[in-house]
Amino acid sequence: MIRVTVWGENVHELKHQIVRDNYPDGMHECIAEGLREDPELDVRTATLQQPEHGLTEGILDTTDVLTWWGHAAHDKVEDEIANRVQKRVLQGMGLLVLHSGHYSKVFRRLMGTTCSLTWREAGEKERIWVCNPGHPIAQGIDKHFEIENTEMYGEPFAVPAPDETVFVSWFEGGEVFRSGLCYRRSNGNIFYFRPGHETYPIYHDPNVKRVLKNAVKWAAPDGARWIDSCPNIPLENAPEPIEIKGEAVH
Amino acid sequence: MIRVTVWGENVHELKHQIVRDNYPDGMHECIAEGLREDPELDVRTATLQQPEHGLTEGILDTTDVLTWWGHAAHDKVEDEIANRVQKRVLQGMGLLVLHSGHYSKVFRRLMGTTCSLTWREAGEKERIWVCNPGHPIAQGIDKHFEIENTEMYGEPFAVPAPDETVFVSWFEGGEVFRSGLCYRRSNGNIFYFRPGHETYPIYHDPNVKRVLKNAVKWAAPDGARWIDSCPNIPLENAPEPIEIKGEAVH
Amino acid sequence: MIRVTVWGENVHELKHQIVRDNYPDGMHECIAEGLREDPELDVRTATLQQPEHGLTEGILDTTDVLTWWGHAAHDKVEDEIANRVQKRVLQGMGLLVLHSGHYSKVFRRLMGTTCSLTWREAGEKERIWVCNPGHPIAQGIDKHFEIENTEMYGEPFAVPAPDETVFVSWFEGGEVFRSGLCYRRSNGNIFYFRPGHETYPIYHDPNVKRVLKNAVKWAAPDGARWIDSCPNIPLENAPEPIEIKGEAVH
Amino acid sequence: MIRVTVWGENVHELKHQIVRDNYPDGMHECIAEGLREDPELDVRTATLQQPEHGLTEGILDTTDVLTWWGHAAHDKVEDEIANRVQKRVLQGMGLLVLHSGHYSKVFRRLMGTTCSLTWREAGEKERIWVCNPGHPIAQGIDKHFEIENTEMYGEPFAVPAPDETVFVSWFEGGEVFRSGLCYRRSNGNIFYFRPGHETYPIYHDPNVKRVLKNAVKWAAPDGARWIDSCPNIPLENAPEPIEIKGEAVH
Repeated sequence: MIRVTVWGENVHELKHQIVRDNYPDGMHECIAEGLREDPELDVRTATLQQPEHGLTEGILDTTDVLTWWGHAAHDKVEDEIANRVQKRVLQGMGLLVLHSGHYSKVFRRLMGTTCSLTWREAGEKERIWVCNPGHPIAQGIDKHFEIENTEMYGEPFAVPAPDETVFVSWFEGGEVFRSGLCYRRSNGNIFYFRPGHETYPIYHDPNVKRVLKNAVKWAAPDGARWIDSCPNIPLENAPEPIEIKGEAVH
Repeated sequence: MIRVTVWGENVHELKHQIVRDNYPDGMHECIAEGLREDPELDVRTATLQQPEHGLTEGILDTTDVLTWWGHAAHDKVEDEIANRVQKRVLQGMGLLVLHSGHYSKVFRRLMGTTCSLTWREAGEKERIWVCNPGHPIAQGIDKHFEIENTEMYGEPFAVPAPDETVFVSWFEGGEVFRSGLCYRRSNGNIFYFRPGHETYPIYHDPNVKRVLKNAVKWAAPDGARWIDSCPNIPLENAPEPIEIKGEAVH
Repeated sequence: MIRVTVWGENVHELKHQIVRDNYPDGMHECIAEGLREDPELDVRTATLQQPEHGLTEGILDTTDVLTWWGHAAHDKVEDEIANRVQKRVLQGMGLLVLHSGHYSKVFRRLMGTTCSLTWREAGEKERIWVCNPGHPIAQGIDKHFEIENTEMYGEPFAVPAPDETVFVSWFEGGEVFRSGLCYRRSNGNIFYFRPGHETYPIYHDPNVKRVLKNAVKWAAPDGARWIDSCPNIPLENAPEPIEIKGEAVH
Repeated sequence: MIRVTVWGENVHELKHQIVRDNYPDGMHECIAEGLREDPELDVRTATLQQPEHGLTEGILDTTDVLTWWGHAAHDKVEDEIANRVQKRVLQGMGLLVLHSGHYSKVFRRLMGTTCSLTWREAGEKERIWVCNPGHPIAQGIDKHFEIENTEMYGEPFAVPAPDETVFVSWFEGGEVFRSGLCYRRSNGNIFYFRPGHETYPIYHDPNVKRVLKNAVKWAAPDGARWIDSCPNIPLENAPEPIEIKGEAVH
């Protein structure tokens, strides 16, 4: 079993009837339901409003893959929690960053860049193309799939060069966007996936659900957890026998 | 002319006679002197103790390449200044991170990882190998060069996979380290270079000086400065004519 | 001066009136003319029909950047010449691979993958988006530019993950393509650029000409030429004194 | 079960008593025995001397991961077979390239570079350092392990920048080498592993055996097999309705 924690900002859901219409239990519960279709995934949710945003050390220690959706309240996420998530990713927890999560503290800290893009909210059509039909995240997806109404995200997307570009989007209004990007940072596998928005029922889409299930499996850790430090190696532990030479401050 | 700002923490120099013996005017002035051997470089220095650590908006705006040396006072660097430097690198300023600068706020924010390593201070010998004799940063360097007394840095070095590994070090005590690493983050060229320490006269070494001169030229911007934002593209500016569809919160 | 050799297959030009109408002196001469607008570029041409395809050792030795256009006669390029070009790229010669050159021996050998894609010839519109406005290859280009009539190339494009994606294309017929890709292989900088076709006057387009001029400058070597071998290091040349141990066949 | 085919050149074994002493059934059988310690691996062998070098379409179609050891007879491998292996790797078969396999046709075609290095045969000590203790290929390996007698391989190693450097070696004679390198080419996971030589019993070493078992599991395909072509997309199959415009040769 892969243990998944679906994190949701859960702000739009509390404010807007249209969002509640699409996601009566919140977007996070809809995303979690999609993942639960796969019997190998053990899925729970956490939200901004919970103590420590629902991301205690205990929760993170028992999470193999975390999914992150936020939009309106990125700056409400405590620095300490963002750092905790970043640290856990570097130790091997997988991370899926969804749609507007591109601007979250967690993603920006892991990328080191601004993660900016262009955008337009006109309900236009998006066609998502598969750049590598053999990639595990693209399994079960045709050459492309479409989302009838969506917010547009356009290039330039200010992220480091990804390890692999799995999807590129075509928009009705004329833009393009690198929509599915793989990164590895220390031992954490990170997947950014563009589709998903609060005012459209995108997380009910079968193709989107399929990608998320695939991506969780791709991101799940396959190595050991390495808790690094910056250790001094005493002279007597040097692999080759040496003696102190030169001068030293310490 | 490439405009270079050499940043030095300038803490050890004020505390320890041995450091002053090696670097009477501070390490930053020694590094700057080495760079000034190249007539194409216009070099100034800045230190932690100056207002805004000597890194005002005006200084950064007129800096093509920044070199960074810090060790004992990483946490004394104001977050605002570290963010300012990071932002300027993403816009195209080159960055050389020297030795213990691996643990600086600036480098860790740009990398997104812990940047930890192992270390030992025994004055042992280091032999730095060139991994690509045709690389611009290795010009004028033989197959390898040696530093007689140095602090050891060993693997694992917790950084993202570099764009290119230019140097790898062999240590007398038995360790190895990836000593010269190239990264590109947005439009900033970043070079990490391991050699250099406060208690040894390493920045007087002709090979080290040569690498630094080469690296400054390699890191200098060759594109335009892109100050990104996250712009909305209004409907009427869509490249293809579209009309509003679906629902929207905004 | 950067010495550029523009290589053209020069086959369509000899067969089809429509190609001659667009390119009276051949596509290679049109591409060369565009590059000659830049006084820092010293440009000559070479074609398939010349002895050694115009790519003798002497020509390659005095070429800083080679541009490659081929389409109908990839298999007419001698293996020996393809290997010679590959070898020279690895030693530092820049390479621009244009449009249908994706299927050339030279590009496929350097990439190691099939370099396949999808395509359609319907004269549709292409809009090329800049993914990094600060990149040297994108200088002087707006957020995007359009080509009114072109052949479509679509994803999946079976190439290794690029060091940087500079352009992504949107097509009227609904496809997308990664249109400007940067690679470094040993010391050769390689840029693949999609636009360009024999039946459309694409190499007369000011934006296309600008990209090619930028890309030549980006690809020009900045290091030394490293002619590698696989040298034995005799025992007496080992940096550390060692004696023969164990057994050996040789 | 992961289906593994261990390919051995099997030339030294037939010529030299010392190699037979280390590997009575050939190096390939020793490597296979090591892998068979893992019950999840289904292992067979193939050698140069067999028809089609033991690598028929049928064998490759039923191989998840191929390991490759060759040294004295790289040029005896038929081009057709080398191409077949390359093609199968791109479709998703994992590949482990061992020691002197760096100069095999298969590895050089996949890398696109010369894959040269420096070397010395003096039976010196090698210490292999782990660059990422959390990497799946390093599981069960301590911070480093040693091989008492080995052939030295030194930098520069003329390969493309790897996706990840898992091991770096320290040699008694003073050299260093990037000894464990991960690549992904299309859907094939490729791991180069330096240790291993015909005149030393290196494939009996428990750490080496452990790395090979780990690497086979890491390299095993996790996606679907994509047999790419370069398909024309007829006008009527364009996702967006378009009509023929402009001129065409075809």
